[in-house]
Amino acid sequence: MYLDKENLKDVEILPKDKYPQKGDKACKIRSDIDELIKEVGLKDGDFISFHHHLRNGDKVLVMVMEAIKRANIKDLTLVASSIFPTHESIIPLLEDGTIKNIVASYISGPVGEAISKGKLKGNLIMQSHGGRARAILEDEVKIDVAFIGSPSADENGNISGVNGTNECGSMGYAIADSLKAKKVVAVTDYLADYPNYPADITEDYVDYVLMVESIGLKSGIVSGTTMITKDPIGLKIARDTLTAMIATGLVKDGMSFQTGAGGISLAVADFLRDYMIEKEITGSFASGGITGYLVQMLEEGLFKALYDVQCFDLKAIESLKVNPNHIRMSGSQYGNPHVSNVVDNLDIVILGATEIDTDFNVNVTTGSHGMLMGGSGGHQDTAFGAKATIIVSKLFSSRIPFIKDRVDCITTPGNTVDILVTERGITVNPIRKDFVESFKAAGVETIDIHELKEYAEKVMGKPEKIEKTDRVIGLSQSRDGSILDYIYQVK
Amino acid sequence: MYLDKENLKDVEILPKDKYPQKGDKACKIRSDIDELIKEVGLKDGDFISFHHHLRNGDKVLVMVMEAIKRANIKDLTLVASSIFPTHESIIPLLEDGTIKNIVASYISGPVGEAISKGKLKGNLIMQSHGGRARAILEDEVKIDVAFIGSPSADENGNISGVNGTNECGSMGYAIADSLKAKKVVAVTDYLADYPNYPADITEDYVDYVLMVESIGLKSGIVSGTTMITKDPIGLKIARDTLTAMIATGLVKDGMSFQTGAGGISLAVADFLRDYMIEKEITGSFASGGITGYLVQMLEEGLFKALYDVQCFDLKAIESLKVNPNHIRMSGSQYGNPHVSNVVDNLDIVILGATEIDTDFNVNVTTGSHGMLMGGSGGHQDTAFGAKATIIVSKLFSSRIPFIKDRVDCITTPGNTVDILVTERGITVNPIRKDFVESFKAAGVETIDIHELKEYAEKVMGKPEKIEKTDRVIGLSQSRDGSILDYIYQVK
Repeated sequence: MYLDKENLKDVEILPKDKYPQKGDKACKIRSDIDELIKEVGLKDGDFISFHHHLRNGDKVLVMVMEAIKRANIKDLTLVASSIFPTHESIIPLLEDGTIKNIVASYISGPVGEAISKGKLKGNLIMQSHGGRARAILEDEVKIDVAFIGSPSADENGNISGVNGTNECGSMGYAIADSLKAKKVVAVTDYLADYPNYPADITEDYVDYVLMVESIGLKSGIVSGTTMITKDPIGLKIARDTLTAMIATGLVKDGMSFQTGAGGISLAVADFLRDYMIEKEITGSFASGGITGYLVQMLEEGLFKALYDVQCFDLKAIESLKVNPNHIRMSGSQYGNPHVSNVVDNLDIVILGATEIDTDFNVNVTTGSHGMLMGGSGGHQDTAFGAKATIIVSKLFSSRIPFIKDRVDCITTPGNTVDILVTERGITVNPIRKDFVESFKAAGVETIDIHELKEYAEKVMGKPEKIEKTDRVIGLSQSRDGSILDYIYQVK
Repeated sequence: MYLDKENLKDVEILPKDKYPQKGDKACKIRSDIDELIKEVGLKDGDFISFHHHLRNGDKVLVMVMEAIKRANIKDLTLVASSIFPTHESIIPLLEDGTIKNIVASYISGPVGEAISKGKLKGNLIMQSHGGRARAILEDEVKIDVAFIGSPSADENGNISGVNGTNECGSMGYAIADSLKAKKVVAVTDYLADYPNYPADITEDYVDYVLMVESIGLKSGIVSGTTMITKDPIGLKIARDTLTAMIATGLVKDGMSFQTGAGGISLAVADFLRDYMIEKEITGSFASGGITGYLVQMLEEGLFKALYDVQCFDLKAIESLKVNPNHIRMSGSQYGNPHVSNVVDNLDIVILGATEIDTDFNVNVTTGSHGMLMGGSGGHQDTAFGAKATIIVSKLFSSRIPFIKDRVDCITTPGNTVDILVTERGITVNPIRKDFVESFKAAGVETIDIHELKEYAEKVMGKPEKIEKTDRVIGLSQSRDGSILDYIYQVK
């Protein structure tokens, strides 16, 4: 920059014949995936990344991994925000060493089972959504090539999740990858006219546009769980959850709210909606993975805005396309613990759990017999950020006991979990003395977590200890980078 | 990340008593500017940055510099995207060494004169808008603290240029600063409810929100030059420019276009509008600093979209607020030469010039007697990117001769300048053989640049050589980082 130079006359002036020449810009479009793998310079030991906005309809991850396999590149670290049943065919690539390590926020289906059975040669790191963004932005996870499944891209790489034939809506989990990866490849089946907008990722962050026949099956993009429960037990839990929410004192004008896409969580949103209409309460924002139920509440004026990091259904995608109060956010803006983020502004979050223990630690990572079947996603992030973190679950529904002395794997630390609602009623974490008091004052009955556990054991019998091997195959990482728990190989 | 660890069992698990505690987030709001200067840890030799979206109405730069002066911090490098007459009162801070170096893209008014007279102890670097974004993103210019004048911010630092009482519209030139500065301060006079949207800069990039009484005078935010010329000579030039544009073959469906806010440039847009309506031509996008004239063309369907890096008038701000086809872009997306950018997609750009030489080099940096009175802004960037770069100017209007053997300071290299239109007609750069041919084929007369110079000299007399000192006070930087020319101290 020559700012410290004493005599600027010594600086060499670019001669006329060295001026950069005006000319045609390089074409980014590629159509041969095998050629592209060579061109990006992918090599043994590299880190490659994928997002999961195409969910169980995604064809991009498998397509790229198969090309990498054909190129005989080994020992890759697969940084996939989530892995779904549709990705089953990468299992042989774990076994043959194409994929050595996996870093993910959620893994369900056969790939999870294969990892649990020890098929990964290297290690597994399970992160939260916010933790993933943090790790990438802080260079803890350095991505060599990001393959970004794109519902549409123009010739310069402006990517939009709301244009094209296989729209997925917000692409919040791909933003950190696009900012930091050495090479960014937009993989698309829809070449849009320039400029393609609204862009989730703009051309200045994209190196290649790889045209493929299909990035996914739209039917699989939409989550299968976005329906309000009709089960009377689920509805009772949802009703009690509204009671608990009101007792926290947080249900009032300006409130912010997040809920998942599970049947009980959606029922909570529905009961909250009725209550807000009745009491004429206007909230500030709702956030997270967005469903049509939250869109309806936005349209009814119950919330001023939606913060959308991923769309769970078509109604959410449609709303994102047309409603200026439906705002995209990146995974970092959503939940990166080392920056100011949206989850820190949440009043109430409703979350599910596979298991909970008497310290209120929650496991959503492993299931029956310790098998990988999920992961934090935004669980850890929202639990930490929200003023009231409420877990909703049936005591008796899955094959494994719900309440334990110690969960099989800590996904979300108990000190961030405030309230549990089951069909047996409301349980308050005793470290939340404020809630213990306000519930008492409101005349809301609560049940101690140890009593709840005893009751469950009376009905179900004492849980058998999960039989696992001694081999640790992975780690459950805290959003800030520290390690919360081991993940063991199953027997 | 423990990915290379052989035995994960050796990894230490965070004990329960070390779990990060859920709690209130730190408050970002500050109201005492002097306390804030201490708190951000600003020290001698640091780099501080400002944007110019408040233009000649900006009060933020002076306010912050005065506080820095009170804190007795010295030898700062001022990275200001532009400096206007309203910033006059920082001149004593050049003299007393508070400000040592200046990096800017445009300087007009008394500060420019003071620098030209040698009042800066260190050096001046003049960059293009795209070059500034490149330099910041590539760590060539490392900003310690970015002070971002913000028409509105919420308590978490979501900044929006279209909310508040002193709106400026798009904040494209502040984006690189927000991404890279070690500390980011939103300086605002309007505290918006959370969430403040649409956000030009989101909370994850902002460390402090400094509340001040006023960030600026709205009357000064709007450029004073955004009116179509009424002068018959200017209108003749504009008409000939349309003829030249048509002769390039680029005025057709899908065309993209940029023009400045000068009176002749706006007249060109107006003639183009009539022509597009008449011939039923629909363009792709228009870009740049956006005026109401381009907004009108967007609303009439003559362009599909506007790419807006800064708003020049209130109509542009209003449009950005409500029209989804009016898109924000960052300075990097606009013109960073090391990434894919919007200017590379331009068909035609209309630009002004203070001087041009027989190599078609353009000077918009220095004026009469070599005095600093402008700078590249987007001149260099768009000239490089556009397929046809057209300079429009009167031969005889300013106090200095327009055509020279060699311009006083090269702002934009002649090999990127294609066509010149003056009241004497159309001149084509002979290196653009394609245009020479197409103009001939279209029957459009052109005049050689040497002939044009001779004609001008016949009327005006031969230009006197500018008398300057031997001391180089600054450098005119090419957008890619190389140096195009010296800037001398004036006599």
